[in-house]
Amino acid sequence: MRQDTWSLGGGGLALWFTGLPGSGKSTLSVAVARELEQRDSRLVTMLDGDVVRRILSRGVGFSRTERGDNVRRIGFAASLVVRHGGIVIIAAVSPYRDVRAEVRTLIEAERGHFVEIHMDTPFSECVARDPKGMYAAALDGRLPLFTGVDDPYEKPLSPDLRIPTLLYNLPAARDLVLGFLDEHHYLVKTGRVGIR
Amino acid sequence: MRQDTWSLGGGGLALWFTGLPGSGKSTLSVAVARELEQRDSRLVTMLDGDVVRRILSRGVGFSRTERGDNVRRIGFAASLVVRHGGIVIIAAVSPYRDVRAEVRTLIEAERGHFVEIHMDTPFSECVARDPKGMYAAALDGRLPLFTGVDDPYEKPLSPDLRIPTLLYNLPAARDLVLGFLDEHHYLVKTGRVGIR
Repeated sequence: MRQDTWSLGGGGLALWFTGLPGSGKSTLSVAVARELEQRDSRLVTMLDGDVVRRILSRGVGFSRTERGDNVRRIGFAASLVVRHGGIVIIAAVSPYRDVRAEVRTLIEAERGHFVEIHMDTPFSECVARDPKGMYAAALDGRLPLFTGVDDPYEKPLSPDLRIPTLLYNLPAARDLVLGFLDEHHYLVKTGRVGIR
Repeated sequence: MRQDTWSLGGGGLALWFTGLPGSGKSTLSVAVARELEQRDSRLVTMLDGDVVRRILSRGVGFSRTERGDNVRRIGFAASLVVRHGGIVIIAAVSPYRDVRAEVRTLIEAERGHFVEIHMDTPFSECVARDPKGMYAAALDGRLPLFTGVDDPYEKPLSPDLRIPTLLYNLPAARDLVLGFLDEHHYLVKTGRVGIR
């Protein structure tokens, strides 16, 4: 599919939020999406954990291979949005460096910008927040292969953007992301360029 | 994701080729895609068996549930293209009526047109062609749960378009599809509407 002889798309943007469970990915990604709907003329699609678990990864397990395949599927879905000129926002633990690099390649092959955003929340803080009680279960041994507890989370070494969430509240973190996009001329402003 | 409060996309088109293995789905879908690249201003994405097996469905088995989930994933990927205003062409056995109906609903929720195209090639003809030798293996019992042999293919009862492939050669079948799209005003002609 998408053989080299086919027309290439482009003009899209992928914001990939990676970080430990409970690091704040979903919350920030929704805030950023709302803002982009006001400030960018392109349509926004969210790929969050829910749709991913419900559709793309039903029945997928927690081995390294399976986790990798899961992230590749999300990346493939994201690449379709970018190919067709949209904005896609992904909130996924996506724990492995090599698979995140693969996904970047896939998105850039569709002539889109890929922005890796690391939600840099300390492990102790994620455990303290534990919004879904999953750390408690993992630390008790009731939930095996939980990222950060007994499965690795490989921090990005040079993310496009790092959000030290202990230092920024939600509006400030949102503005950090929007400011980054604006500075890099990654926004297509409403009313300026009429792609849609 | 894509909660009701988010902006809706639209303007896309999904052509879903369904039929027995060896019925000619891939061949015709490629011919149609090439023609659409000339005659429609929207970008075309092909979702064929290869990308599906390699990315969306790696490790997926052949139980009814797993086959259904596989088709749902393809449908989800297709819905992203439609949401962002593109054309997506799917060539997938997609043997079950209820899952094809689900996929239609998903695509139409993104305000796109869904065209179900049944490659109506008789079983005996598919077995005679057997381009990949898979019918031979299935009929020998070496390839269990093969659609048409020991797993059901549920013919569409009212497809948008039925291609009796014994009666049409490739260019004629391609023209049948294009003619259908044109008649239903599903084409966005190059140079007429400048979406892209």
